[in-house]
Amino acid sequence: MPKIVDHTKRKQLIAQATWKVISEQGIHHATSRTIASEAGLSQGALRHYFSKQEGLLTFAMELVKEQLVTRLIKLDNKQMEPKDKVVEYLLEFIPTDKQTLLEMEVWFAFITYGKTEKGFTVNNEELEKAIKAAIVFLKNESLLKDVDEEKEKEKLYAFINGLALNLYLEPHLVNREQSKEIIKDYLKYIMN
Amino acid sequence: MPKIVDHTKRKQLIAQATWKVISEQGIHHATSRTIASEAGLSQGALRHYFSKQEGLLTFAMELVKEQLVTRLIKLDNKQMEPKDKVVEYLLEFIPTDKQTLLEMEVWFAFITYGKTEKGFTVNNEELEKAIKAAIVFLKNESLLKDVDEEKEKEKLYAFINGLALNLYLEPHLVNREQSKEIIKDYLKYIMN
Repeated sequence: MPKIVDHTKRKQLIAQATWKVISEQGIHHATSRTIASEAGLSQGALRHYFSKQEGLLTFAMELVKEQLVTRLIKLDNKQMEPKDKVVEYLLEFIPTDKQTLLEMEVWFAFITYGKTEKGFTVNNEELEKAIKAAIVFLKNESLLKDVDEEKEKEKLYAFINGLALNLYLEPHLVNREQSKEIIKDYLKYIMN
Repeated sequence: MPKIVDHTKRKQLIAQATWKVISEQGIHHATSRTIASEAGLSQGALRHYFSKQEGLLTFAMELVKEQLVTRLIKLDNKQMEPKDKVVEYLLEFIPTDKQTLLEMEVWFAFITYGKTEKGFTVNNEELEKAIKAAIVFLKNESLLKDVDEEKEKEKLYAFINGLALNLYLEPHLVNREQSKEIIKDYLKYIMN
């Protein structure tokens, strides 16, 4: 029987090695040499999975979003009061532990990289929509005060992205409970 | 009479050339060659002002903050209703035109760069303090509702930094009037 390598799994391991290199050395050091070394593969084996550098970086970037989506789906299936669920939901967009902090670091690295690297685009639209969807959720659950929905979406998007940015700037302040409190405090203004 | 070169002025021009290179090509392309070329100087002349690359980058980074402080002082001297002044004050921390968008791009580039480049530190503390000072200003002007000052500082800091980040992500949305509206709308929650 031929040895079966889980292709998808292997690609994910390579993407995670890419994250580590980006986080520790910076995105400009994320070369096939450093990534292969981090992943414990030869450069030849790495090229088998990703023939081009851009393909690898794009995959590694998309994986950040995928991880988030996986967590959001998991949360969606949980039985929980809507007023608590919205807090847990918003917490997913900010770093709350080592793993999500790493993802945030990688995401910001991709963002700055995408600003000047032609052919490398970071699409933030889905994240934006997902954050703003919290307002619709509140409305559907009759938890939203009589406020201007569109304005609240804009403000919440700024607030959550700002929380994420500030924790990226000061990673020693990453603390799930404290972030929970500040999000709850913010929501008081708009929730019944 | 010897030719007098305004040393400070020249250094500022070099720093601005550095901004332009960072914004257009990325911080990893900000070398003495590209910066000298952008500034219209020889590399030798550049080295006369900045013998080391780190010194130049630090100077260019500090200049972003200095420009902001200059604008804040100018604003402070203006005769204006406190409730309007606080909006104008907070607007200074987000991109509202081409020039402030450039500064923001450069600032974010420095932030990600500082994450992995040893010996290059980005200090965001002053910006944080300056944003949070708006809450103290509101309180001193008796414009602050009966709210928890510390929590409001944290939330405002997240909100303003988030607005800045979102405009950096979508620069085509930079619009002073719209930003003014969203800031005013946010302040409604905490202002008398």
